[in-house]
Amino acid sequence: MPQTPMDQRPPDADLVRVQEQDLLTFTSDVLSRVGVRAGDAAVTAAVLVAADVRGIASHGVARLDYYVTMIEGGFIDPGAEPRIVRQSATTALLDGENGLGQPASVRAMTLALEKAALHDVGVVTVRGSNHYGIAGYYAMMALEREMIGMSLTNTHPIVVPTGGSRRAFGTNPIAVAVPAAGAQPFVLDMATSTVPYGKIEVAARRGEHLAQGWAVDGSGRMTTDTEAALAGALLPLGGPAITSGYKGYGLAMAIEMLAAVLPGATYGPLVTAMWQPAGASDLGHFFMAINVAAFGDVPAFKVRAGDLLQRVKAGPLAEGAPEILVAGEKEQRATLDSRRRGVALDRAVARTLAALAGRLGLAAPI
Amino acid sequence: MPQTPMDQRPPDADLVRVQEQDLLTFTSDVLSRVGVRAGDAAVTAAVLVAADVRGIASHGVARLDYYVTMIEGGFIDPGAEPRIVRQSATTALLDGENGLGQPASVRAMTLALEKAALHDVGVVTVRGSNHYGIAGYYAMMALEREMIGMSLTNTHPIVVPTGGSRRAFGTNPIAVAVPAAGAQPFVLDMATSTVPYGKIEVAARRGEHLAQGWAVDGSGRMTTDTEAALAGALLPLGGPAITSGYKGYGLAMAIEMLAAVLPGATYGPLVTAMWQPAGASDLGHFFMAINVAAFGDVPAFKVRAGDLLQRVKAGPLAEGAPEILVAGEKEQRATLDSRRRGVALDRAVARTLAALAGRLGLAAPI
Repeated sequence: MPQTPMDQRPPDADLVRVQEQDLLTFTSDVLSRVGVRAGDAAVTAAVLVAADVRGIASHGVARLDYYVTMIEGGFIDPGAEPRIVRQSATTALLDGENGLGQPASVRAMTLALEKAALHDVGVVTVRGSNHYGIAGYYAMMALEREMIGMSLTNTHPIVVPTGGSRRAFGTNPIAVAVPAAGAQPFVLDMATSTVPYGKIEVAARRGEHLAQGWAVDGSGRMTTDTEAALAGALLPLGGPAITSGYKGYGLAMAIEMLAAVLPGATYGPLVTAMWQPAGASDLGHFFMAINVAAFGDVPAFKVRAGDLLQRVKAGPLAEGAPEILVAGEKEQRATLDSRRRGVALDRAVARTLAALAGRLGLAAPI
Repeated sequence: MPQTPMDQRPPDADLVRVQEQDLLTFTSDVLSRVGVRAGDAAVTAAVLVAADVRGIASHGVARLDYYVTMIEGGFIDPGAEPRIVRQSATTALLDGENGLGQPASVRAMTLALEKAALHDVGVVTVRGSNHYGIAGYYAMMALEREMIGMSLTNTHPIVVPTGGSRRAFGTNPIAVAVPAAGAQPFVLDMATSTVPYGKIEVAARRGEHLAQGWAVDGSGRMTTDTEAALAGALLPLGGPAITSGYKGYGLAMAIEMLAAVLPGATYGPLVTAMWQPAGASDLGHFFMAINVAAFGDVPAFKVRAGDLLQRVKAGPLAEGAPEILVAGEKEQRATLDSRRRGVALDRAVARTLAALAGRLGLAAPI
């Protein structure tokens, strides 16, 4: 979700390239080795590798180590089977039974799409789940059916509410995918924090200062110091109150309501820490599919959507700006590059994967 | 929607107080006098006065002059009857037929709620509409049915995309209302621009500078100068790219897709200017209702929602912060104050209403 014009991607010299299929196989093998059933391992690998293919390094195989650690620590059940708790023609509630977030989420979004195909709208929520990777993956599942997809999740607390000093929300992403004629669909996939936590960590490693408005220290004061920020929290989108940070805070809360409170998952400040969990995360997700055809002719809709994207892109540039991007465009470029030159991984991530491979008795992917 | 800790509400000395019922009657009478049918005039008055009651002065009767001017100029049809273009069990598309946005929107949200009562989810979109007032009014209609309500609209262009210098989007608000046990429901009602245009106008009148991140000049450069900003545009939520303004831009575009492109309304930069229209606005809206009962026990849901609100409110304060507010709390306080002391109006707005009254041969409300 943290796709930004100032992504923390290092220069090419610090990257290694790996074929997408090799990375898929390796990721799936690692998950199988720690007890994940074959089908679930393949689905989870597909979601993780899709992030790397799209250039969203923070949510790709860099997180494999996290999932393995949580499974080995007993905090995620690799053998869990998501269960449908209740459903109607247009809705469903799934319990992830503390399994990986990805298989439960693919199943939930598939169900939402099936319901929308029959009844024009489908809303499926999930509780008892875990980190589900990039929010956009599930929203984009709607595109092949020419539907509009939406995906929301709560995550581990790292963001303060406006006026507060304690981490109360995760980076709670919103993803919306809309089919469009022309060069690309519209794919919004954004955290509701100003920046991802990874950006603070990268700045800390490089000895850099943070931009004003990204983070607060442990007392809730704005800070540009990385150490203070790491002990503090992220600010919601909008930053401090003067630039309307309460709006990002409001969005984060709305996502808690829809994705966690509605399905009965753990919410807000009650969610355990990501890396030092006190127990199961019990995260919640919200998926929605809207059948475009219910509102009119689908090709005509796609022409209008593509026309809007093109008009905004073709607008006059701000002084000094190289171009206007639309949501999903940067990721589409990264995808083309990944398919042509192989998927780019940070050397540090490649080393982590090699270590994981060695420990589990697998061949390293690179 | 632009509810902020730094609202442009003037000090009490510059306010006059009027009884809610008197303001409703007056507003309805003004609209009737320019040709709006009685039922539609009452509905529109209810939406406008609700904004003033909730302390959202920018979207209340201060806008009555705008609606009257547009009706008298032939840009809004006061006698229009919204028409259902198509519908299914869970969806509908309405054409507002260039009438006032409020009656079409109340009808659309009512339809969404009825569909959700029968089928758990209702999504209703509107095209051929006009400015609909506060987005939150329609989302809040869900609360009395103990459902979750959502309301989105595109508006007249005033916000630049990241990297652009031309107004491409309106302040495109998001409203989400969630029923909760305890002191108050959750009511998010926010523009996706950093600040409302009215804030720039107020700063200009007072000879103040703007905060960095609110606006750009006509070349798309960030500016703190009010004159430059008035000739320029607002920045999306998040401000410049360094503080992730492309996220607010992405939200604004997502709202164009759902509220304007989906129903077939005019979208983005093609929408006419608000005050010097080249023709009908043809704005679009998106309303959704979700039946909480489809996902589980409603009282238990409300207890969880209320608990989340209370936990966040009760969290430790940032240094210097007086309190943590939750979305809708400020408006609820304003409502209590309006009911106790009368609805507060700026003297300037009261003068506008008096002028309108004189011109239309009505008694002024204050």
